[in-house]
Order: sequence, then C-alpha cells, then structure tokens
Amino acid sequence: MRGGVRSRLSHRLPAGASPGTLCSNPNAQQPVMKAVVYSDSVLQEHAPKTAAEAVALRAKGQTLWLDIAGLADLTLLREIGERFGLHRLVLEDITNSQQRAKAEDFSSCAFVVLRMANPGDQLDTEQLSFCLGNDFLITFQERSGDCFSFVRQRLADAKGKLRTSGPDYLAYALLDAIVDAYFPVLEQMGEHLNVAEDSVLASQKNVEVIGQLHEVRRDLLVLRRAMWPLREVTQQLTRGDLPRFQPETRVYLRDVQDHVVQLIDLLENYRELGASLMDVHLALVSYRINEVMKVLTIIATIFIPLTFLVGVYGMNFKGMPELEWAYGYPLCWGVIVGVALCMLIWFRRRGWL
Amino acid sequence: MRGGVRSRLSHRLPAGASPGTLCSNPNAQQPVMKAVVYSDSVLQEHAPKTAAEAVALRAKGQTLWLDIAGLADLTLLREIGERFGLHRLVLEDITNSQQRAKAEDFSSCAFVVLRMANPGDQLDTEQLSFCLGNDFLITFQERSGDCFSFVRQRLADAKGKLRTSGPDYLAYALLDAIVDAYFPVLEQMGEHLNVAEDSVLASQKNVEVIGQLHEVRRDLLVLRRAMWPLREVTQQLTRGDLPRFQPETRVYLRDVQDHVVQLIDLLENYRELGASLMDVHLALVSYRINEVMKVLTIIATIFIPLTFLVGVYGMNFKGMPELEWAYGYPLCWGVIVGVALCMLIWFRRRGWL
Amino acid sequence: MRGGVRSRLSHRLPAGASPGTLCSNPNAQQPVMKAVVYSDSVLQEHAPKTAAEAVALRAKGQTLWLDIAGLADLTLLREIGERFGLHRLVLEDITNSQQRAKAEDFSSCAFVVLRMANPGDQLDTEQLSFCLGNDFLITFQERSGDCFSFVRQRLADAKGKLRTSGPDYLAYALLDAIVDAYFPVLEQMGEHLNVAEDSVLASQKNVEVIGQLHEVRRDLLVLRRAMWPLREVTQQLTRGDLPRFQPETRVYLRDVQDHVVQLIDLLENYRELGASLMDVHLALVSYRINEVMKVLTIIATIFIPLTFLVGVYGMNFKGMPELEWAYGYPLCWGVIVGVALCMLIWFRRRGWL
Amino acid sequence: MRGGVRSRLSHRLPAGASPGTLCSNPNAQQPVMKAVVYSDSVLQEHAPKTAAEAVALRAKGQTLWLDIAGLADLTLLREIGERFGLHRLVLEDITNSQQRAKAEDFSSCAFVVLRMANPGDQLDTEQLSFCLGNDFLITFQERSGDCFSFVRQRLADAKGKLRTSGPDYLAYALLDAIVDAYFPVLEQMGEHLNVAEDSVLASQKNVEVIGQLHEVRRDLLVLRRAMWPLREVTQQLTRGDLPRFQPETRVYLRDVQDHVVQLIDLLENYRELGASLMDVHLALVSYRINEVMKVLTIIATIFIPLTFLVGVYGMNFKGMPELEWAYGYPLCWGVIVGVALCMLIWFRRRGWL
Amino acid sequence: MRGGVRSRLSHRLPAGASPGTLCSNPNAQQPVMKAVVYSDSVLQEHAPKTAAEAVALRAKGQTLWLDIAGLADLTLLREIGERFGLHRLVLEDITNSQQRAKAEDFSSCAFVVLRMANPGDQLDTEQLSFCLGNDFLITFQERSGDCFSFVRQRLADAKGKLRTSGPDYLAYALLDAIVDAYFPVLEQMGEHLNVAEDSVLASQKNVEVIGQLHEVRRDLLVLRRAMWPLREVTQQLTRGDLPRFQPETRVYLRDVQDHVVQLIDLLENYRELGASLMDVHLALVSYRINEVMKVLTIIATIFIPLTFLVGVYGMNFKGMPELEWAYGYPLCWGVIVGVALCMLIWFRRRGWL
Repeated sequence: MRGGVRSRLSHRLPAGASPGTLCSNPNAQQPVMKAVVYSDSVLQEHAPKTAAEAVALRAKGQTLWLDIAGLADLTLLREIGERFGLHRLVLEDITNSQQRAKAEDFSSCAFVVLRMANPGDQLDTEQLSFCLGNDFLITFQERSGDCFSFVRQRLADAKGKLRTSGPDYLAYALLDAIVDAYFPVLEQMGEHLNVAEDSVLASQKNVEVIGQLHEVRRDLLVLRRAMWPLREVTQQLTRGDLPRFQPETRVYLRDVQDHVVQLIDLLENYRELGASLMDVHLALVSYRINEVMKVLTIIATIFIPLTFLVGVYGMNFKGMPELEWAYGYPLCWGVIVGVALCMLIWFRRRGWL
Repeated sequence: MRGGVRSRLSHRLPAGASPGTLCSNPNAQQPVMKAVVYSDSVLQEHAPKTAAEAVALRAKGQTLWLDIAGLADLTLLREIGERFGLHRLVLEDITNSQQRAKAEDFSSCAFVVLRMANPGDQLDTEQLSFCLGNDFLITFQERSGDCFSFVRQRLADAKGKLRTSGPDYLAYALLDAIVDAYFPVLEQMGEHLNVAEDSVLASQKNVEVIGQLHEVRRDLLVLRRAMWPLREVTQQLTRGDLPRFQPETRVYLRDVQDHVVQLIDLLENYRELGASLMDVHLALVSYRINEVMKVLTIIATIFIPLTFLVGVYGMNFKGMPELEWAYGYPLCWGVIVGVALCMLIWFRRRGWL
Repeated sequence: MRGGVRSRLSHRLPAGASPGTLCSNPNAQQPVMKAVVYSDSVLQEHAPKTAAEAVALRAKGQTLWLDIAGLADLTLLREIGERFGLHRLVLEDITNSQQRAKAEDFSSCAFVVLRMANPGDQLDTEQLSFCLGNDFLITFQERSGDCFSFVRQRLADAKGKLRTSGPDYLAYALLDAIVDAYFPVLEQMGEHLNVAEDSVLASQKNVEVIGQLHEVRRDLLVLRRAMWPLREVTQQLTRGDLPRFQPETRVYLRDVQDHVVQLIDLLENYRELGASLMDVHLALVSYRINEVMKVLTIIATIFIPLTFLVGVYGMNFKGMPELEWAYGYPLCWGVIVGVALCMLIWFRRRGWL
Repeated sequence: MRGGVRSRLSHRLPAGASPGTLCSNPNAQQPVMKAVVYSDSVLQEHAPKTAAEAVALRAKGQTLWLDIAGLADLTLLREIGERFGLHRLVLEDITNSQQRAKAEDFSSCAFVVLRMANPGDQLDTEQLSFCLGNDFLITFQERSGDCFSFVRQRLADAKGKLRTSGPDYLAYALLDAIVDAYFPVLEQMGEHLNVAEDSVLASQKNVEVIGQLHEVRRDLLVLRRAMWPLREVTQQLTRGDLPRFQPETRVYLRDVQDHVVQLIDLLENYRELGASLMDVHLALVSYRINEVMKVLTIIATIFIPLTFLVGVYGMNFKGMPELEWAYGYPLCWGVIVGVALCMLIWFRRRGWL
Repeated sequence: MRGGVRSRLSHRLPAGASPGTLCSNPNAQQPVMKAVVYSDSVLQEHAPKTAAEAVALRAKGQTLWLDIAGLADLTLLREIGERFGLHRLVLEDITNSQQRAKAEDFSSCAFVVLRMANPGDQLDTEQLSFCLGNDFLITFQERSGDCFSFVRQRLADAKGKLRTSGPDYLAYALLDAIVDAYFPVLEQMGEHLNVAEDSVLASQKNVEVIGQLHEVRRDLLVLRRAMWPLREVTQQLTRGDLPRFQPETRVYLRDVQDHVVQLIDLLENYRELGASLMDVHLALVSYRINEVMKVLTIIATIFIPLTFLVGVYGMNFKGMPELEWAYGYPLCWGVIVGVALCMLIWFRRRGWL
C-alpha cells in the first residue's frame, strides 16, 4: 500500500509525448501468455510465445481468451495490438497502469479497464484491461496471479452458460469474479475497524490504534478511487453503451452492478465509521486527560498548602510562640486535618470526587 | 448489532462462482412454511411441507400468500423457484442475505428485497424478499418472527380492501407494516440521544456517554444503509416501474414512500444531533480541563513560592540575621500574606477568579 | 422544544394497521370549530358544533373557511371527512401530527400539510393541514392559537383581493402568513447566536454558552426539517401541480416561495455560524488552557528547584561545610537569584513571557 | 457587519399582511432622485423631486435612467410604481431590503434585485433593485453612495456602446460594475486571511487571530449568501429568460456571469482556507500545550522526589544514623545527582529532550 | 505560491470600466513572439517583431502557430487582435490573468483559456490562452518558459499526425502537454504528503509538519481551482461544442479529459489524506499530552504527600512525641514506603502503569 502511493505516478510519459506512445514501466513483469480456445464442444489450452502464434489460434465458431500477465515487453504488446486491430490509445492505456476505470467502444473491440484486488494481507490492486472483440477476449494483467481460477474451472467443466455463450459472457464472468474478490478485502477492513473499535472503547493500545485507523482510512480511500469509476463502467455496460455486450449478458451485468453498489455502500459506511472512531478516540483521550488532571489537582491542592504550613513551623526564627505552646503540635494537626477536610468537601461539591 | 457488523460478509460465494449459485449460510434457520389462500369470501391457512404441496394451493380466483421463514434448505428453495418460475438470479439474491434493497421486474414475478427491523432492545435487521406473481405472493424471511401480525389479523377479519384486492395489495400491506416497524426503532434511538444529551449537558457519566453516542451513531449508519435504497424502491413502485403493482395500489404506496422519506428525515436529523452532541461533549470536557487547570494553577502559584520562602528560613546556615530579628517571624507572615494577596489580585485581574 | 423531541413518535399506529385508520393522540385538544362564509359582498362568522352544521354552511357563490383547532375528536373528523368528501388517507395524515410537509391532489380536494411556528420564547411548531375544495377551505390545527389574525382582519375589512377571490387565494394568504411567521422565529435565533458570539469572543459564561449554542443548533435542525419540505411544496404549488390553485394565485405563491428560500438561506447561514462558533469556542478554550499551563509551568519551574535547594540546607547532616561558611547564607541567595534569572531568560527566549 | 446581522430581519411586515403592502424601514434614508436622459446624441442630467417630474422626462427615442437612493418615502415609491406601471409585488420587494437576488419578468418591466458591496473597511452591502422598461431603467438603492461613477463617466464621454444601446445595456453596465466591485472586497478578505495565516504559523497574537478568522469566515458567509443567488440571476439573464435583455447584450452578460463564477470560486477557496487555518491553529496550540507540559513534567519529575529526599534529612527524629555518618552529606548529594541523571536518561529515551 | 495568493487580484480594472478595456499588469513581461509555419512538407520558424510581420506569415495550406510569451505590450496585443479578428472580450480575458478555465466559440476563432503549471519546487501556475482560427493557433503565455518542448520536437521531427493535421490537432497536442505537466506537480505533493505522514506517525518534527501539511492543502486548493473548470472545458471540447475542433481530434481530446478526471481523482484523494493526517496529528498530540500528564501526576501524587509527611517531622514544635520514639525514624520510613506502595497499586488498578 505504502509503496503503492509512493510509486503511483513514477513511470509517466513526458508531457507532450505523441498520443499512443507506449512507455515501459521499469517494474513491469515479463509477459506470460495463456490462451484458451473454446466452443460449445471443444476446449483447448495453449501457451503462445508470440503475437503471431496467438492470433493464429482464432478459429471460426470458437472463442479465444488470451490472457497476458506482465506488461514489460512493449514490442509484443505493439504486435498484439496490430494483429488484433487494437487502437493505439487503447495500447497506451493498457501500459499506463494508473488508469481510472472506464469502458470505451472502438470499431475493432470494446475496451474496459479497471482495478483488480489481489488476495493478501496488504491491500494490493493491479490494473486489468479487457479487449473484447467479436470472437476473442484479451485480458492484460500487470502481474501474474489473479482471482479467475473458478472461472477457468467453470470453462473446463463445460457446465452452465459459459461455454455456450460468446466472449462477452466470459468478460462478464471475469468482471463478476473481480467485483466479488473485493468483498473479502472489505470484510478484512471491517474486521480491522472492529478491532480498532474494541481498542478505542477499551482505551487500550492507543497509539497503535491511531496508526491503524489511519491505515484503514487510507486503504478505503484507495478502494474508493477504484470503486466509484467502476460503478460508472458497470452502469455503461448495463445501459448497453457497448453493443458488443449482448442483451442476454446485460441481465447478468445488472447483477454485477448491484454488487458494486453494495461495495460502495459498505465502503462509505466504513469511511463514516472510521471517522466516527477517530472522534470517539479524541473524546476519550480528552476525557482521560480531564480525569488525570483532576487526580493531580486534588492531590496537589490538598497537600501543597499543608506542606507550606508544616514548612512554616520548620522555620528557625527566634520567638515563634506557637512552637512553645503546650498543645501546639496537636493543634497544628487539627488545622491540617481541618484544611484537608474543607478541601475534600469543596471537591465533592464541584463533583470532582 | 456488534455481531451484525462482524458476520456481515462471511458466507459469500467464492469469487467467480456461476451466477445463480445458491450458497448455504451456516447460521441459516431451517425453513418454516406458512400459506394463506384467500379470496373475497374464503380464507384457508395451511402449513405445506414441500414445494409441491405449496404450489398445489394455487387456485383460480384466489390469492396465495406463501411465507417462508428460514433459508437453510437450498433444495427446497430451488424447487420453489422452479415450480413458481422464479429466475435463478432471484434465488441467488434471496439466499445472499446482504442485499441492498431493490425492486426488479421479471417475466414470472416482480421481485422486491429489503431489510426489516425486528423488535427488541438491540437493533436487529433481517432480509425480506417478496416474489409477487399474478395470483401469489411469496415472502422469504431469514428467521421466523416478523411484524405482520396486524396484517394477518386484517386478512382474518375480512374487513377493508385486503381480502378483495389482489396479491399486490397484500405486498403493499406488508411493505407498510415493515416501514412502520422502523418508527419505534428510531424512536428508541431518539430516546437514547435524549438521554445522552442530558448526560452530556449535565457532565455526568462521560465515558459511558461517549460509547453510547458511538453506538447510536453506528446504528444510525446501519439504518441509513437500509433506508436510502428503500426510498429508491418505493419511488420505483409508485412510479409504476413494476406493472404488477396495480394503479389503485400505487396511491397507497405513495403513502409508504412518504413514511420512508419521513424516516430518512428523522434519521439524518439524529445523525446531525449525534455529531453535534459529540462536539458539545468535547467542548465541555475542554472547558472542564480548563477549569481544573485553573484551580491547580491558582493553588500552586500561590503556595509554591510561599513554600520556597518558608524553606529559606528553615535552612541551618550560620549567620542568618533575619532569624535573630525581634519581629522576624511576624514580618515573615506579613510577607507571606502580602505575596498571597498580590497573587489573588493578579488572578482576579486575569478573570480566573 | 425538549418535549417536542421526546414525544415525537409516541402516538403512532401499530405497524400493519389498515390504511386510513385514525389514531387518537392522547395529548390532542378537543376541537374548536370556527367557520367564515364570505363572498364579495357578504361575510358571516359561525361556530358550528357538528359536521352537519358545518357542511350546511356551504352556499352557492360563497366561500366557506372552516377552521378546526384540536384533533382529539376522531368521530367528528371522520364525519367531516365523509361530508366534505375527503380521502381517508388525507384524514390519516391530518391526525398523524408528525407529517412531512407535502401537497397532494385528490379528486375532491387539494391537500397541503405543513408545520406552523407558534409565537413564544421556545421554538414550538404544530401541524397545519389544508383541504382546499371548489368552494371551501378547511384548516386543521393541532391546537388553538395561530398567526392568522391579520388574515381574519383583511377578510373583515373587505379590502384587497381576498374577498373577491376564491378559497385558493385564502389558502395562499394563510400560507403566506405561516411562512412570514417563521421570520421572527429565525430572527430570535439570530439574536441568540449574536449573544452567544459575544459571550464566546469575550470568553464569558462558557458552560452556558455551549449549552445555548447546542440548543440553537438543535432548534435549527427542527426548523430545517420543517423548511426544506415546505420548499418542495411551494415549488409544486407555483409549478401548478395542484390545479385547484388558480394561475392568478400562483403569481403570489411565487412570492411565498421566495420567502421560503430566503428562510432556508438564513437557516443554513445560521447553521454554519453556529458550527463556526463552536470551533471558535474550542480554539479559545485550547488557547486559554495553554495560557494557564504557561503560568503554572513558569511558577513551578522557577520555584520547585529553588525549594529543593533551600531544602538541602535545611538538612541536619553533620559536617555540611557550606553551613559554616561566613558568606554561606548570602551566597545561597545569590545562587537562588541566579537560577531564577536564568529561568526567566530562558522563558523569554521561548516566547512564554 | 455586526449591525448587519443584528438588524437583518427587524423591519418585516407582520405575518399575514396583504401582498404588496409597503413597510417603512425606520432606518431608511430619505430618497434622492437623479435622472439621466440620453440618446445617441443627447445627454441631460436632472434631479426630479416628484414622481410626476420623473415620468415627464421620458421621451421618444431616448433612454431614461432614474436612480433613487433612499427608500424612506413610501408615498413617492407608490407613485413611481403607479406611473411607471410597476407591479405591487415589485414595490414590496424593493422596500423589503433583505431580498435574495432574483430576476423576474413582468409585463411592464423586467425586475432584478441583488446586493451591492459598498467600498470601505467593513463589509457593508445594500440592496439594489433594477426595473428595466422599454425606454427606462430605474435603480433603487438603500443609501446614496455607489460604485457607478465609471459608468456615469462613460455615459458622459459618449464613447463605446453605452450611449448607442438601450436601457438593457445600461443595466448590464451597472451589473458589471456591481460584480466587479466585489473583487476588491474579496481581495481584502484574502489579505486578512494572509495576515491571519502568518500570525497562526508564527504562533503570534493567538486570541486576536481566532476572532479575526471568525470575522472573515462570517463575512464570507454573508458574501456567499449574496453571491450564489446572483449566479442564478446571471444565468437566467444569459439564458434569455428575461427578453427585455437583448441578444446583443447577452454576450456581455455572459462575461458578467464568468466574473460571478470566478468570485464564487475564490469565495469557496477562502472558506476552505479559513477552515484549514482554524485546524492549523488548533493543532499548533495542542502542540504547544504538549511542549509546555513536557517542560513542567521534566522539572517537576526531577525535583519533586529530590525535595522529598532532602525533606527526609530535615526531619528532627532522634536516632537518624545517616545524619551522623562521616560521609552522609556527600553521599546524599551523590544520591541526588544519581536520581537526577537517571531521570534525564529516561526522558531522553522517551524522546522528551 | 505565497506571492500567488497575495497578488491574485491586484491588477483588476476599476469596477464599471468599459468591456474590452485592456489593463496592463505592472508585473507583466515584455512579449516575445515565436512563430512556426508548417504544413505536411514544410516547417519554418520565425521570430516576428510586430503584429504585421506575424499576420504576414499566414499562408494558404499552411498552419501558423504564433506563441506570444509576455502580456505587457497592450498595443501589440490590440494590433494582433485586430489583424487576426479576435473579439475584444477575448483580448480582455487574455490580459486579465486570473481567468477561470473556459472555452468559448467566436465567429473568428475558438477561444480556450486555462492555467498551466510551470515546473519547479514551488507550485507556480500561469494563464495560457488559445485562439484557434481556421489556419492559425495563437497561444498567449504570461511568462516565457513552458512545457511545450516535446511538442516542438514532434513538429520538427515531422512524424505522427501533428504535421499532417490542422491547428486544432496542434491545440490538442499542447492541451495534452499542459495536462500531463500537472502529473509531476501532483506527484510531488503526494511525496510531501508521504513525508508528512511518516513524520506524523513517527511523532517527529511536529511543528514543521503542521506548516507543511497546511502548505500542501493550500496548494491542493489552488490546483483544484485550476482543475475543476478545466474538466468542464475538456468536456465541452469532447462534446463538440466548439466545432473548430474536428471530430478526428475529439477522440484524442477524450484522452485528455480522462487525464484531467484522473488528476481530479488524485487531487481529491490527496485532500482527504491531508485532512486525515491533520486528524491523526491531533489525535497523537492529545495522546501524548495524556501520557505526559500521567507521568507528572504519578510522580506528583506519590511524592507531594510524602514531602508533606517529612515536612511534619521537620517542624520545631515542643513536645512532638514521635520524634522521641526509639523506632520513630524507621517507622516513618515504613509509612513512607507504605503510602508509596498504595499509590502505585492504585495507579496500576486505574491502568496508568
């Protein structure tokens, strides 16, 4: 997460570069290509090495899913772009890994870009781009590792609508998997908030709590930046702005959108809860300062005057008549106890005891 | 409530599961089915055990209300779905108990899902789903126990429009009961806020107050998440987006919507009040810290210098001429009283006394 | 006001009651009916006792204004409803005294409900309902006592458009009176805010100020809840959504709407001012804590080390050579003065003096 | 400004007064009328005393600008209204000097009312009303003194479009002058904020700074209340809602609207800056309290135990063996220095030194 | 930046000046003109000295890019305006360097004004105006120095679409360069926020951190004021409101708009992060005050009573029996240790140790 904020903007093109210029992110991984060609009855898995091999897998009546994980090889990307007819602005957006989620329709393909949450203890998101053609779907991931295993399983199982529908249904299935993968991430944040809540209310481990709350709030900000544009994207898709998504698929996309809205609801809820917890923490600390101050003030207010008093009779002046009195010492104790009692009564009246 | 936040997302399907997959919530109750078949002149109550029994109750010219409390038996749900022609996404939404309130129109039924508040000391909401067909209404509750007793009574009494109208009017009557059941919940929160307000302004029981205020604010967040989507739902219904709700019923739905808006108004009001009370609490604690500090400072500022003074004449140096003076001791007292008076005057000038 | 929040929701119908059920508020007053029948040339005042007497006052070419203050007698209300053809949802809304302001058009009458501010030191609002028919206007108040005396005077004076226009103009005149009656209420709150501002900036009476500010902010919340829906109502009326309000009257309603918008402007302004004053108060208290702390710290930091020093020479050890020195005592004073001066210089350097 | 808030609502009509009733503000000035009659070739200045004199100045092919400063003489206003055919609601709005900016189209004239900032050290706004007829423009000011001297100069100079265009262009020119006169007002507030920022960051003059910041924020609230409705007005004018403003003039009005939007931008910016400065102030005061507390705690924590220690050996018990030891006194010093060093090391470890 | 706020409004025209009046900013630079004339095959660079020389460079089939840096020479600007047919409001907007970003269509040219970020450590923005004619693009900068070097390079390189397209594509290329130049500026602010976050969480250098956070937040406000209107501008351009931007260019403008939206996203994110950090800082300082207070209170509460106790037996009264007891001194120590232990146990119970 930290690193995320840090490196966010660091591999930008220089201002004024020609549109469609691809820039190589120094941390980008070498691409790994996996291809699945399937139809109602057939399913083949390939691992093409070059763009030519990949494009050769397109076959009539079959759907090609080409998954490219790693964006370091710009030459490969350029070649893929040319052979599948991708617009050069699409290629620029794919390699520039800080895109805001968006969906755009080009003549050769529908282009959707969004952020995907990777599983793990730390919030870690990567950019995923879809290029949806008539008989192919290309997915570009920043790193290998994704949340698509169930979808791959369903493809292999040949059950449900996945094998019998076109690439748009596959795109929906992947979208659905991505959105659903955000739920455990939010669940974890909710868990962090619960722990923080318990700590705050029990007044324990306060410094760590502040840092943790801040961490959660920052992570929620990051998620928010991923989620709100995603909402617009799913809205566009269900509205039918991208005609490559068939009407039958749009019913299912409405379901995805419901999930996104649900995520945003939770997110905003957590944001408010986090802010409220910060308030509670501040209120409790103020309260405790007040309590500590009261104890100090009571002790000091009772004993400082008394210490003065006994100091007086510790002086070595000549001719201090009280020192010679027969009952001087008991009288002195009497005064001490009297002063202390008066103070205590006064404190009780003020409601401090 | 606590538990509510805790378990919110815990029985999700794995990301990438096929749409329409039902998941069994480990805490789900075993279903209890109650059926009421009624028309203008007839009313029969049944307790069907299987989906077949339930669907057999449908009769021409009669309305069937099938109430299913408990969602643990996925086989039963699937069978009910098949026999009543419910879409598989509907079934998925019914079993996934963290839905956002929504209303959707399918060819076989109108589907409405929302959250219902259960009576009790703690805020406790469960999901309720309506499937409204031409001659039936199926309600799915998470747990048995609801706020429908008055509606059942009205059905039995055969008075009013309930018996003479179709299942959409029954759906309206249940919706109305659900929305009205939120009022005592909010009333209770208003009561909590009033108590908190009194405590805050009277500066009593401060730590508990902070916790209670936080609790109320969190509960208000939960209610808010239930209420705002509900508003959209009732808007859709009154606008006539779901044609299964007859125009005559829509007049009454407008009334339900007014109540929802009223609830939201109150809710937002309470949220602001809660935030304002937190501010007031902070301001009062700061004020009291200031007061305590003043007392401490006055006492310390008067007596610490005097204690120093009497300490001086408690020293055992040879040749301290003051100690030998005839009027040394009274003079010392004179200085002490003089210093104390100066301090008091200075404090009064600063407005601290 | 306090009581207002307390009793807000307490006389609700049970959830699930039949629509149009009237509920008797235990605190409701017994109704007092006043009727005015007027036309261009005639004006008669009556005090009908029953619904039958009231409806008998309708006369061709004349306008009947029936004012009912007190909603305790449900039988009377039901009868009035039947005889004047009011919808039963209208009657339910009239008796349920926590309505949100709204305007609705029924076949027999236009129905407008809103809140009216009663004059007095405390913010006190009651619900007012209008039923505007073709030749009558019925107003339902919760309690007797209103702000309509000027309108009654204008009716009696037979000047202006009031006597020559229909009941919709009368409804406008009453609406105008109600809206204008909010101005002194807000003026009073502005006055409270001014007083609070002076107190806060002069740092006087701080505890009371916090309570008062909170009171004003809460009252503003109540007003806000009354005002914003009122704005929608006047918008509906000026747009002509309720055709019973004639186009000629709508010009004047636009004026009412301007006033409502002006009130809302002021209200929001006061809300911001109140929040800002709370901030200022907190900032000033923090500042004063800092000042008090500085005084304490300066005094304590100077005298506590010195008290230690003189304590040292008050010890009774054998063989303390300093005590025997000829200039021991003056030297000791020298050290004391030196330490104090160093401290003072250091404080001045830090900007604390 | 203070007075402004104070007297805001004090000369309202009683609630329920007839529409179009004029009320005399007790502080209103006696009116001073200035008239300018001009055409392409002619320009005459007059000072009519009565409405009859004023209306007599209307001449074919010439434009009359009648400027009335001071609203105390209701008879004059009524007469002006009658002779120029102004609607009575217009007259009511003119005399009621707390109008929200608005633009309305009547059959006899277009009516625009807005607030104008008077130059001076204190924020001081007055209401200005325009009545734009076919061949006349009447401006009503609350007080004499305005920002129109440049416009008057341009009229006299006979350069530019002013003399050759109709009264709508004159209205534009005055509007432009009014809007531009807000810029120095905001500039001054920006200056105040800059000064406050310097004071806050330099931690100087803190109490005054809080008051000043509050003052600026309140003034910004007042300006905001003037500016946002003004934006709506200029939008209406540029959209052509008031057809008396010719299409050629509207191009220029778009320029005025740009300025209004720019003012609002700045305003909101300043509001945020003010709020941020309050935060900074609070953070810095808290920080300084912490610093002061640390000094106090370090001093007290070192010397209070030591004072106790030396107090012990100041006791007069029989048989205190330490007092008799040969190296008792140096040993005692050793303990003192040791304790002090331990404390210092501990403080340094905690990062307090 | 400081200076930026300071001088923002200082060279305004007097209120009421004629529209189209140019005002000379006293700090304006003397203009430097650079002209590039290019077509598919030709590229010539010129440095015209007068408007006449500049306008003479227009040639059929060629595009003229005239870049004027420095706005001090009003005569030159007026001449340029006349010869290229620019509207006088356009010229006024160009010289008034505090414009809000906007795009307007005039008959002779499309006019776009926006703010451009200059590279450097301090946030420094200047106004840039585009006048886009059929065969020319004039850019007006406040100062020399810009972010166009890459565009100039691409023009010289004669690669890509730049040389073969019209002046609207050049305008797009410059817009793109300007928007992309904001990314490093934001990146730097993100860096500042990261550093501030580390300092806050590590509780180091607190005073500087507050000032730095405030600086960043103020800079973000400035950027925000530049960015939001820019978003509207790019929206207008992509929507095709300015027909001089060809449809082919609009595809690319959509890309620019995506970047602007991305910038705004980041900006708002940083604003929230900044506010959250301020909260965290406050919470941590409060926490530390509490910690410091506890230490002070523990020390003072243990030793102040004990100092009183030893003070008692330092008194010189006659007849203090305890002093004569054989085990008086050890007993006294016993009491001291006992009291201290009780206190420590009590503190531990309260959770202070």
